Amino acid sequence: MNPRKIVAELHAELVRYGLVVWTAGNVSGRVPGEDLFVIKPSGVSYDELTPENMVVCDLDGNLVEGEHAPSSDTAAHAYVYRNMPEVGGVVHTHSTYASAWAARGEAIPCVLTAMADEFGGEIPVGPFALIGDDSIGQGIVETLKGHRSKAVLMQNHGVFTIGKDAKAAVKAAVMCEDVARTVHVARQLGDPLPIAQDDIDRLYDRYQNVYGQRSPR
Amino acid sequence: MNPRKIVAELHAELVRYGLVVWTAGNVSGRVPGEDLFVIKPSGVSYDELTPENMVVCDLDGNLVEGEHAPSSDTAAHAYVYRNMPEVGGVVHTHSTYASAWAARGEAIPCVLTAMADEFGGEIPVGPFALIGDDSIGQGIVETLKGHRSKAVLMQNHGVFTIGKDAKAAVKAAVMCEDVARTVHVARQLGDPLPIAQDDIDRLYDRYQNVYGQRSPR
Amino acid sequence: MNPRKIVAELHAELVRYGLVVWTAGNVSGRVPGEDLFVIKPSGVSYDELTPENMVVCDLDGNLVEGEHAPSSDTAAHAYVYRNMPEVGGVVHTHSTYASAWAARGEAIPCVLTAMADEFGGEIPVGPFALIGDDSIGQGIVETLKGHRSKAVLMQNHGVFTIGKDAKAAVKAAVMCEDVARTVHVARQLGDPLPIAQDDIDRLYDRYQNVYGQRSPR
Amino acid sequence: MNPRKIVAELHAELVRYGLVVWTAGNVSGRVPGEDLFVIKPSGVSYDELTPENMVVCDLDGNLVEGEHAPSSDTAAHAYVYRNMPEVGGVVHTHSTYASAWAARGEAIPCVLTAMADEFGGEIPVGPFALIGDDSIGQGIVETLKGHRSKAVLMQNHGVFTIGKDAKAAVKAAVMCEDVARTVHVARQLGDPLPIAQDDIDRLYDRYQNVYGQRSPR
Repeated sequence: MNPRKIVAELHAELVRYGLVVWTAGNVSGRVPGEDLFVIKPSGVSYDELTPENMVVCDLDGNLVEGEHAPSSDTAAHAYVYRNMPEVGGVVHTHSTYASAWAARGEAIPCVLTAMADEFGGEIPVGPFALIGDDSIGQGIVETLKGHRSKAVLMQNHGVFTIGKDAKAAVKAAVMCEDVARTVHVARQLGDPLPIAQDDIDRLYDRYQNVYGQRSPR
Repeated sequence: MNPRKIVAELHAELVRYGLVVWTAGNVSGRVPGEDLFVIKPSGVSYDELTPENMVVCDLDGNLVEGEHAPSSDTAAHAYVYRNMPEVGGVVHTHSTYASAWAARGEAIPCVLTAMADEFGGEIPVGPFALIGDDSIGQGIVETLKGHRSKAVLMQNHGVFTIGKDAKAAVKAAVMCEDVARTVHVARQLGDPLPIAQDDIDRLYDRYQNVYGQRSPR
Repeated sequence: MNPRKIVAELHAELVRYGLVVWTAGNVSGRVPGEDLFVIKPSGVSYDELTPENMVVCDLDGNLVEGEHAPSSDTAAHAYVYRNMPEVGGVVHTHSTYASAWAARGEAIPCVLTAMADEFGGEIPVGPFALIGDDSIGQGIVETLKGHRSKAVLMQNHGVFTIGKDAKAAVKAAVMCEDVARTVHVARQLGDPLPIAQDDIDRLYDRYQNVYGQRSPR
Repeated sequence: MNPRKIVAELHAELVRYGLVVWTAGNVSGRVPGEDLFVIKPSGVSYDELTPENMVVCDLDGNLVEGEHAPSSDTAAHAYVYRNMPEVGGVVHTHSTYASAWAARGEAIPCVLTAMADEFGGEIPVGPFALIGDDSIGQGIVETLKGHRSKAVLMQNHGVFTIGKDAKAAVKAAVMCEDVARTVHVARQLGDPLPIAQDDIDRLYDRYQNVYGQRSPR
C-alpha cells in the first residue's frame, strides 16, 4: 500500500484511542527502500489528513515532497530514522497518562502481563529536551537503544514510540497509554504487586515470537 | 442464530464499553450440543472481525475450523469449558479499573447494590499465572468454582468472566469494569459503607430470579 | 408529542452522557392528564428501545399497557408520582461518580456555580433501601420533599432525579453526574473553596427564573 | 465564511472534546469590521445549533439580530470584546478538570512543554464573581490583560478562553482542559518536575512564531 495512505490512515487510530487533541501528535513511516519518510503536515487537523497532504522528508528532515510544512517534530523523527536503521515507524503523542508519568519524570513499572508482553519491562524516561535541534531525537535514541521498550516518556513532554513500521509504532503508542493509565489507577489505591524478572522475560519472549497470525496478512 | 455470528458481534460490546484496545481481549461461546467453542482469531483487529474469520476449537483448544490461528488465550477458555460444563461463554479483557485491582491483587468489595445483584458479593482475585499451559485456566476454575461471582481478577493480568452463554459472559465483563471503576472512585476519597451480608444475599437472590423479561426474547 | 416517544428517545441521552451500561438505568414520564406513566421495559437493551416497547403503568406500578414487564425500578417511580404530584418525570442511573459519593454515603457539597444553579445547594444522600417494596420510593420522597435538589444519592445504590417532566429529570441526571465528577476531581487534590450561602441562593433564584428561552420551544 | 456559520460549527468541537454537557458552554466570535459579535442562543441544545439560530449582539450585549435570547453569559463576552480590542473570539465551558482547579482556586502550574507552547506559563485563577452584571467580564479582563495565558479559571465556576478569532479561543479551551487533566493526573501520584522559566520562555516564543503552516489556509 502507498506509504502516504498508510501514514494518513494510521492517524485515525490516535484519535480513536483518545491519544491526541486538536493538531497535536504525529505518525511517520519510512518509505520502503528509500532514505525518506512520510510524516504529518504541521498544524493540520486530524479531520483534514489525506494521503495527498502528507509530506515526505529525507533523513535530515528536509522537505522533499508536499505542499505543507512538515510536523514541527520532524527533526526528532528524522534523527531516529538516521540512527536506528531497524526502525520503520515513529509516533509522538501527549497522551494523558503517559504524559503525566513524564511530567513527574517517573518510569512506568512493569506490573501487568500485557506490559511485559509489549514492552518487556518498564517504560523508561528520557531527558528534558527543547524542540529546535537534535536534542529530542538524541534523547529518544539514547534511551531506546538497547532497551526492550519501544516507548520513551520524554520528561515534561510526552511519548515517542518506535516500531518496525508505522503500524507497530502506533500500536506501541496505544499500548503505552493503556498501561500508563492502568498502572496509574492501580497506584492510586496502593502498591501494585511486582512481577518477577524471569516471568517478565518469559512473557516478553513468548509475545514477540508467538503471538498473532503466523502467515503475512 | 449462528454461533460464529453471535460471538463475532459480541466483540463490538467490548469496544463500545471501552474494555479493550487494539487486538487485546476476546469472547468465546460454546457451540450448542457439541464439544466445541467459537473464539476470536489471534491478533486480528476488532474492525475486521466477521462470522467468517472466527475460529472453532475443540475442548482441548485445538483448531477445528478456521483459517486463522485461535486467540492466544484459547487454552484458558478451553480449560474452563472442559471443567465447568454449566459455562456457555467466556470473556477475557484487560479493562482498566478491573486490571488495576488485579495489579494490586485486591478483591473488589461489594459496596454497591448493582454488584450484589450481578456478582452476589466481592469479585475475587485469582493467582498469578503465565500463559502457555493450563495455569491460567486452572486459576480461573479454582477461583470461580463454588463462588457466586462470574468474574475473576487474574493477578497482574486482567479479568476473565463466565456465563451461561457468550452474551451473559460479556454482560459480566461490562458490569465488572463498571463496578471496578465506581468502587475505585468511591475509595479515592474515603471508605465506602459496607452492605450487610444478608442484604447482599437478598439482592443477589432477587436479581438472579426476578429481573428482566420472563418470556424468552 | 407522544409520551412513549418522548420517554423512549430520552434514554439515548443516558447513553450519550455515559450514565448507563448494558440495561441498567431508566427514564419515566407522566402521561399528561392521566394517573399513568410511561417507563422503560425491564432488561431490554438501549439499542432496542422504541416507543412501541415502552410500557405504561398506573400510579401503583401495575402494568396497564405493553408487552414487556416494566423496569424493576417501577415501584420506586410509582411511589414518587403518587406522593409528589408536581413531578412529571423520574430518572434512575448508577452513573459512576454520583454512585461513588452514594457508596460513601456522602452528600456532594455545593462548590460550583453550575451546581448552585441547578441544585440550589448540596446533593443529598437518601437511605440504604432494598428493592421489592416501597422502601426506595419512600427514601427518595423523604429526602427530596422540601429540598431544592432534584437529585438524591441513594446510599450504596445510585441516583434518582426528578423534574417537571421527563426531559427535566434527564437534565438533572446529566448535571448530577457532571458536578459529582468535577467535585470529586477537585477534592482529589485538596479542598474546594466554599460558596457563601447567599451567593448560592442568588444563583439558584436567577437560574430557575431567568435562564433559557422565555417562549415555549 | 459567514461568522454565524463559523461560530455555530465551532460548538461541535466543544462536544467532540467532551468540554460541555447539555446546553452549558458557549462560543462567540466578533463580526469582522463591526462592533458586533455572534454568540450561542441561551438554553438551546448542541444538536440544534445552526447558523440561523445563532444570535448577534452589540458590544454592550444587546440583542441585534436573532429570534432567541442570547446566552446567559453574553454580558461577560461583551465586556471582553469592549475591553480587549485584540480579542476576536471568546469561549466559556465548565470542562471537568479545569473547573476542578477552579473549584480549589488553584492555578495550573506549567509543567508540560505543550502548556508552555500554548499558554506561556501557568493558567491563572480569576475571582469568584456572580452572573448578572459586569463582574465576570471584569474578572476575566483583569486576569488576562498583560498575561500570556489565553485561559482563565474563574473561581468555583469554569473556564473562559480568548483568541484572535473564535477558532483560536476554541483551541485554547481544548488545550486548557487537556493540560488541566494531564497535570491533575501527574499530581495525583507526586510532584511534577518544574520547567525552568527560560525554557518556558523559549518554548512559548517558538510556538507563537514558528508552529503550523506559514501560508494562509
